[in-house]
Amino acid sequence: MKFSEIIEKFEIELVQGTSLTAHPDCNPQVTGIASLETATAETLAYCEGGKYAAIVGETAAIALILPVDEELQRIASDRGIAWVATPHPRLLYAIAISLFYQPYQPKPQIHPTAIIDSSASLGQDVSIGAHAVIGENVKIGAGVCIFPNVTVYPGVEIGDRTILHANCTIEERSKIGADCVIHSGVVIGSEGFGFVPSDRGWVKMHQSGIVVLEDCVEVGCNSAIDRPPTGETRIGYNTKIDNLVQIGHGCKIGSNCAISSQVGLSGQVIVGNGVLLAGQVGVANQVKIGDGAIATAKSGLHKDVDAKAIVSGYPAIPNKLWLKISAVYNRLPEMYKLFRRMAKK
Amino acid sequence: MKFSEIIEKFEIELVQGTSLTAHPDCNPQVTGIASLETATAETLAYCEGGKYAAIVGETAAIALILPVDEELQRIASDRGIAWVATPHPRLLYAIAISLFYQPYQPKPQIHPTAIIDSSASLGQDVSIGAHAVIGENVKIGAGVCIFPNVTVYPGVEIGDRTILHANCTIEERSKIGADCVIHSGVVIGSEGFGFVPSDRGWVKMHQSGIVVLEDCVEVGCNSAIDRPPTGETRIGYNTKIDNLVQIGHGCKIGSNCAISSQVGLSGQVIVGNGVLLAGQVGVANQVKIGDGAIATAKSGLHKDVDAKAIVSGYPAIPNKLWLKISAVYNRLPEMYKLFRRMAKK
Amino acid sequence: MKFSEIIEKFEIELVQGTSLTAHPDCNPQVTGIASLETATAETLAYCEGGKYAAIVGETAAIALILPVDEELQRIASDRGIAWVATPHPRLLYAIAISLFYQPYQPKPQIHPTAIIDSSASLGQDVSIGAHAVIGENVKIGAGVCIFPNVTVYPGVEIGDRTILHANCTIEERSKIGADCVIHSGVVIGSEGFGFVPSDRGWVKMHQSGIVVLEDCVEVGCNSAIDRPPTGETRIGYNTKIDNLVQIGHGCKIGSNCAISSQVGLSGQVIVGNGVLLAGQVGVANQVKIGDGAIATAKSGLHKDVDAKAIVSGYPAIPNKLWLKISAVYNRLPEMYKLFRRMAKK
Repeated sequence: MKFSEIIEKFEIELVQGTSLTAHPDCNPQVTGIASLETATAETLAYCEGGKYAAIVGETAAIALILPVDEELQRIASDRGIAWVATPHPRLLYAIAISLFYQPYQPKPQIHPTAIIDSSASLGQDVSIGAHAVIGENVKIGAGVCIFPNVTVYPGVEIGDRTILHANCTIEERSKIGADCVIHSGVVIGSEGFGFVPSDRGWVKMHQSGIVVLEDCVEVGCNSAIDRPPTGETRIGYNTKIDNLVQIGHGCKIGSNCAISSQVGLSGQVIVGNGVLLAGQVGVANQVKIGDGAIATAKSGLHKDVDAKAIVSGYPAIPNKLWLKISAVYNRLPEMYKLFRRMAKK
Repeated sequence: MKFSEIIEKFEIELVQGTSLTAHPDCNPQVTGIASLETATAETLAYCEGGKYAAIVGETAAIALILPVDEELQRIASDRGIAWVATPHPRLLYAIAISLFYQPYQPKPQIHPTAIIDSSASLGQDVSIGAHAVIGENVKIGAGVCIFPNVTVYPGVEIGDRTILHANCTIEERSKIGADCVIHSGVVIGSEGFGFVPSDRGWVKMHQSGIVVLEDCVEVGCNSAIDRPPTGETRIGYNTKIDNLVQIGHGCKIGSNCAISSQVGLSGQVIVGNGVLLAGQVGVANQVKIGDGAIATAKSGLHKDVDAKAIVSGYPAIPNKLWLKISAVYNRLPEMYKLFRRMAKK
Repeated sequence: MKFSEIIEKFEIELVQGTSLTAHPDCNPQVTGIASLETATAETLAYCEGGKYAAIVGETAAIALILPVDEELQRIASDRGIAWVATPHPRLLYAIAISLFYQPYQPKPQIHPTAIIDSSASLGQDVSIGAHAVIGENVKIGAGVCIFPNVTVYPGVEIGDRTILHANCTIEERSKIGADCVIHSGVVIGSEGFGFVPSDRGWVKMHQSGIVVLEDCVEVGCNSAIDRPPTGETRIGYNTKIDNLVQIGHGCKIGSNCAISSQVGLSGQVIVGNGVLLAGQVGVANQVKIGDGAIATAKSGLHKDVDAKAIVSGYPAIPNKLWLKISAVYNRLPEMYKLFRRMAKK
């Protein structure tokens, strides 16, 4: 694909200049995408900011997606590299990758070893892999792709074009929207951790509720989303969940959130829209997190978090305060020495 | 089911009053259980304490499980809601749910696609799902339910009525008691992380021991319980383990413990009876935790913990001290400023 | 097996004395390996140091692997226990276990229910379990063992003698070396968590790269190793990864590292050779960790770590400083009281 053809695929408002204007003849054939370090004379790479100037000066890439940075553009032009400048290099990089690569997906076909209950309904052009098991009264939308060894319990509904990767399990009555991606090993709709203390030890509370995933939700490998005793656990539109995440019974998560790997949400946590939870964050029972809030890695949230707040640490405090504390934390032994001297007086 | 019939199902000593005494005619038909917020004119809801008074004043529920709280009882009576009062609302809620709902379980039947070694022994009324694989000399008790795509390695024993959910793996020679629930994606009896440093890098230590689960143990989705080099890893009677938990080789866990999601136990940890480990707790090698101890969320235990102690933080310290420290922690930057001024003198 | 025969299996330079020299007649028959506490009159046990003197004085073991410790040797000799002394008791224990026990492995055989694409190539003496699914153009080396219910996506390569335990998933184009062990529930080669913010919410970045595992890598149960947008995620020779670990897209991990349970590596983390990451450690995007560095349990690494450094805490600081701080941390409430008094002056 010619470099100019790639640029045509980008939304016009994302492009703020290209070497083609000054050097229309420098319009190389691009055969793939690579990182700056591993690029070859046939590949397009991208660069996020000025700190990569040295690498731009050495990369073997034939074409570059650059930030709006005249210095980088000059280096690239001097080296005869075609470039396009944009305020959103990563976004254009994502679009460029999709021009050359699509993830593997089997053709629509029901494998003869799949076990599909006769009461299940299947949409058009469904793919169901070898040894998948589909239970009673399951409803599968058009274009759904179910990889091998997936198990779907009775009463589940799966929206159009949703992908279930190998070895995942969708338990009873879960409702999964359209255009979702459920990665391998995920378990959706299992029983919430509901045990009540009593004189005779833990008594199990059955979990009669369900899990609902709205459209365009993605759930990473080996994550678990539990169903509640009554009502719903709900994940909002276009929310993305990374690997090994725990979502407890009855949580309600808004739309367009990003929940990083190994985050754990206890029961009945309420998360707004556009919330970012970084890796290994933990959230206690019934905590409410406002729209657009951010919790940095490893923080532990015990209390409600305001919309747009950035919190850190455990127990979580405002990020700015946490950064100040982290800066002086290392001086504690010195402070303690002085404290001891003064306490003696 | 009539409200009065539901109350008859509760143990008599758990009931400390009901609206039926004063208003025997107000005995509604109940068709299901719901939360206070989502209840309808056909459903029973529950309420844990006085802080829910406003919601009790608005709920559409036709019947309520209430704490022993005269104000709440009065509000309910005034609104014509039938109620039962108890010191244990959550326990009665659990019992009530079980009257209207039981988790899905397939009928006793061996699916023709299940692969069962001829040396395996099966009890009465066993259910084995599609594509499950049962190895040599496996012993499966009466009423056991094995969901689809489960793999059971040779020499495993599974007690009566135990449930293995889809896609879980029980490795060689594990012994699982009666009435256990093993959730989807769980791995029991895999090799402990045993590598010994040597001049030529890591040398693998084979793990010849086994994992033993006593009766009534529950293990949450995608958790892993490893077998040790020699001897046993053992989980005691009625202990409940949440999702994504790691139990290392050679741990011994007592009875009636609750281990929350994403907890990690290193090797040879000894946990007493009735211990609570909250979410994302980590425990170092060979630590001993006494009966009834509690570790709050995200704490890291490096040293032994006394019976009934409550510990927090990392490294873990008594919870009361940790709360005090957390309260003054935010003042560290101010303290540091003063410290700097004084240090100059 | 006679005790003397066991000693002959040990490398000569690891043995620094044995009771056979003084008491050649005390050469018992050993039938298995056990821990000091559970040993019987037929089993060999091991002991790591002098603090176990009391247990050596009581153990029922017929033979012992001891450290180079004259007191322990004397106790053992006095009790008529055969012993061998070594500076590396755990290493000899590992070797001894392997004389009596090998993990279960099925015989080379393709189970008739396995679904193997006709374009896949299989080496000599391969074992493929029931209901395993092998995709297009997969290359499987000699002596590979694939347990039941494993799914291998198209284009994967698996080196000689590698073991894939039940219910694991190897996704598209992953390259797994020789002599690797992939435990149950592991997912290798899934899409990295690549989403780019835009005006219309998260835009998915396809992950066209691959995951490469060099020879002798071991990956613990339910861990996940993601593929990157371009290039490779790579795990070096003989690196050992425990259960429930997350390795993000584009990480490069050196050789002979040990990565403990529940560790999480974000994207593009660079880890040197011989690095130890203890349980629940988290590492931020693009952090570089030098050869031989150690991060203690639960630490959070936001900045690069020097070779051979030992770091702790969150944000991670040098371990020695962290220990000092931890020692005075408990005095914070007192310090704060004094601070308040002085601030008033």
